[in-house]
Amino acid sequence: MADDKKLTTRAEDFSAWYNELVLRSELADYSPVKGSMVIRPNGYGIWERMQRALDDMFKATGHENAYFPLFIPESFLKKEAQHVEGFAPECAVVTHGGGKKLEEPLVVRPTSETIIYHMFAKWTQSYRDLPILMNQWANVVRWEMRTRLFLRTLEFLWQEGHTAHATEAEAEEEARRMLGVYRTFMEEWMAMPVVTGQKTDSERFAGAVRTYSCEAMMQDRKALQAGTSHHLGQNFAKAFDLKFQNEEGEMAFAWNTSWGVSTRMVGGLVMTHGDDNGLRVPPKLAPIEVVIVPIFRKDEERDRVVGAAHKLRDELQAWTGRGATDRLRVKVDAREGMKPGAKYYEWELRGVPLRLELGPRDLDQQSVMSARRDTKEKAALPMADLAPQLAKLLETIQAQMFADAKARREAATIRGGLTYAQFRELMDGEGGFVYAGWNGDPAVEAQVKEETKATIRVIPDAEFRSPIAPTTCLVTGQPAKHEVLWAKAY
Amino acid sequence: MADDKKLTTRAEDFSAWYNELVLRSELADYSPVKGSMVIRPNGYGIWERMQRALDDMFKATGHENAYFPLFIPESFLKKEAQHVEGFAPECAVVTHGGGKKLEEPLVVRPTSETIIYHMFAKWTQSYRDLPILMNQWANVVRWEMRTRLFLRTLEFLWQEGHTAHATEAEAEEEARRMLGVYRTFMEEWMAMPVVTGQKTDSERFAGAVRTYSCEAMMQDRKALQAGTSHHLGQNFAKAFDLKFQNEEGEMAFAWNTSWGVSTRMVGGLVMTHGDDNGLRVPPKLAPIEVVIVPIFRKDEERDRVVGAAHKLRDELQAWTGRGATDRLRVKVDAREGMKPGAKYYEWELRGVPLRLELGPRDLDQQSVMSARRDTKEKAALPMADLAPQLAKLLETIQAQMFADAKARREAATIRGGLTYAQFRELMDGEGGFVYAGWNGDPAVEAQVKEETKATIRVIPDAEFRSPIAPTTCLVTGQPAKHEVLWAKAY
Repeated sequence: MADDKKLTTRAEDFSAWYNELVLRSELADYSPVKGSMVIRPNGYGIWERMQRALDDMFKATGHENAYFPLFIPESFLKKEAQHVEGFAPECAVVTHGGGKKLEEPLVVRPTSETIIYHMFAKWTQSYRDLPILMNQWANVVRWEMRTRLFLRTLEFLWQEGHTAHATEAEAEEEARRMLGVYRTFMEEWMAMPVVTGQKTDSERFAGAVRTYSCEAMMQDRKALQAGTSHHLGQNFAKAFDLKFQNEEGEMAFAWNTSWGVSTRMVGGLVMTHGDDNGLRVPPKLAPIEVVIVPIFRKDEERDRVVGAAHKLRDELQAWTGRGATDRLRVKVDAREGMKPGAKYYEWELRGVPLRLELGPRDLDQQSVMSARRDTKEKAALPMADLAPQLAKLLETIQAQMFADAKARREAATIRGGLTYAQFRELMDGEGGFVYAGWNGDPAVEAQVKEETKATIRVIPDAEFRSPIAPTTCLVTGQPAKHEVLWAKAY
Repeated sequence: MADDKKLTTRAEDFSAWYNELVLRSELADYSPVKGSMVIRPNGYGIWERMQRALDDMFKATGHENAYFPLFIPESFLKKEAQHVEGFAPECAVVTHGGGKKLEEPLVVRPTSETIIYHMFAKWTQSYRDLPILMNQWANVVRWEMRTRLFLRTLEFLWQEGHTAHATEAEAEEEARRMLGVYRTFMEEWMAMPVVTGQKTDSERFAGAVRTYSCEAMMQDRKALQAGTSHHLGQNFAKAFDLKFQNEEGEMAFAWNTSWGVSTRMVGGLVMTHGDDNGLRVPPKLAPIEVVIVPIFRKDEERDRVVGAAHKLRDELQAWTGRGATDRLRVKVDAREGMKPGAKYYEWELRGVPLRLELGPRDLDQQSVMSARRDTKEKAALPMADLAPQLAKLLETIQAQMFADAKARREAATIRGGLTYAQFRELMDGEGGFVYAGWNGDPAVEAQVKEETKATIRVIPDAEFRSPIAPTTCLVTGQPAKHEVLWAKAY
């Protein structure tokens, strides 16, 4: 359990705050394998809720789950030239199995395009077999030197969607659709606003024609790439001979997309919503939405209060006003030998959205004291019809957390009006999101990265662009080809 | 999609029948990595329902999910002497990562006792930290030479529960409880009867004090070990220094259990319930319980019938009589250019428990023709109040499948009365489950395995033992120490 030492504050050292928070709220722990983490039940519970919500959305858009092998023959990775260049340096390689040296080394999947499109090729004969819309929930390994809990780990958990289509237009529509699904999930479930758009060539997925991304702003004003969706064109179809007979009877290569989000999102949730007292979990993703802390001084009060707390929990959980499949998630903390204050501290650290304090006087008055985790506001609520009041309050919290995060992002976003010198100063200092013109030259992009560590996060989608498009390039003063979003990133 | 060639029958070649069925019903496919399989959506859908049911049962018994690393330092495996002896020969070894040779090779987990108890040791100080009741859903790798789809693959998906307790009695209770959970799942969800009991020393999990197992009989009369639960004693606690301060203030080693079931169960389901027309999925695990096939000859009938089929599906899915979270899972097969007979064939192959045929005459009469997959029985059902009728029928099918499987097992079970010569003849021929006395000598066990390929599946739990216990050993004629269950096994 958490010790009572205060967390380092975000203002003091954001990075130390993050690590302490993740460890002390028992979301995760370091493992004996350098770079690999252990996801503890508090963190895994959030991931499970993320999975359930996303999986429902994938199925609602026609996708089915499947499972492909962890190991990929080294030769497969080499079949798509850009892909191998991007991933080979990050691979873990199995050279021995069953006590013998393998004839061909096996790569632990860093992503599964190669093996999946090999299988799709086996299953596809005609246009009637298309589209194939599959997803897998899996672990992947990318050999990272500088790891951070949840944000960048040697092994991580994710989902990877893989689809094959008869036409380019359908693939483009799919890549866009899944970007939209991610955005909806991040905004409505994680209460984390994102900017969507297209990556520049230098930031594109290795093997993709176009990469779309959701970019969120963390509280230290850095960007987090929270999810990506790739239009792969026919690159992998050609490499893996994924062909079909079209309606005209001719053989054609299929068009592919792939898209993924990972346990990195848990880190994004922490850095979007955490405060100096600990985690704040958006209610829709909270494994526990409401914790009831029974309060009593004397032993004779104990049974009455603890009994009432359990009865209240049962009543709240039985309520179906939010739909029978979406019951209130309530826990009673009846631990012995621990003061209420210590319990409050712990549940605040763990980010439970709503606390109810229940003592003898509350029972006498048939009310309960509620405390919001997000605003710390307290209010006495009548016991009668408590469930719908709590559900409403949780909705309010969810909406408020999203609004706060969005306001914070907007306050740290600058649109135009900066000279490159001012931009450099900003990125050296407090940072933020900067919308500016870019002449489209990768050399300029590289120069800015070198000089400021900022990168082009995306060429934003229309709704995120400035009302008046910038006409000149931030760096060169040349005519702007695109308005782009610059930021330092995780 | 399935081609129209008939399956090899079970009587002709059980093994060929199994492989063809798995491939043609698209449960799984071979992958380019020898020994690794691809689980296709039809198979993964069954596995997802298995996961959901088991996960609910684990949580109801107080367990939480977590996730531990895929890679285990080679030195960890060596800390428990029996464990390394059992698993080292089956390990896949990562020797290179990020383009460099690793200082210490990493083993791809064949099971996670070592890394998990290392972490438990880090998290445990006092008896107040116990019990720890964790589970993880994960992939594991065991280097197998002779693989079979689902039954024995290089990589497989499973859950592994790991717990730590303050006392031996609690650990024993836990190991027994989870064996009971597995049995309940296998009987009530998979409709697969099992014999539970304890493994002999030679069949014990490497590192366990006692291993309990659920043993099912396949249609070829061979046994399938479908799930195991291990009381690990203090073996791993001592190897990984998993200690706690007990209530008396003294340091003591914890007691551990571990328990697991895997995608092997999908193979068990196929070999328990499949027939010569294909798969039969028990309704509770069927991703699709009811398939509606619209039937029409003329184009003008088409719209009416297909429209009615979709309306019927919507009505059936909206019905909440089985609980709001357990809706009927219904699909309309409105594919164009495919005859109803071809559709019947395909859904039979895939094992959907119930088919509804809906044509113009059925609509005129406000009825629908139902066809059970298990018995092939057909019956006209009135459209009015169809959902509760179907739910009842599905319950009947589930119960019937269990009863049939149990009767089949009993018919192929012999209790006592065999000489060893007769036993050898039986095992050379049709096989089956044989209950007999054993003198407790491992040498006898080894001799029988050598001579007949049969092994002691379990020392059965009380309820499975014969009314009159055998007094002599099947092989030696010496006094029997235990009644045991002999069978050839997968």
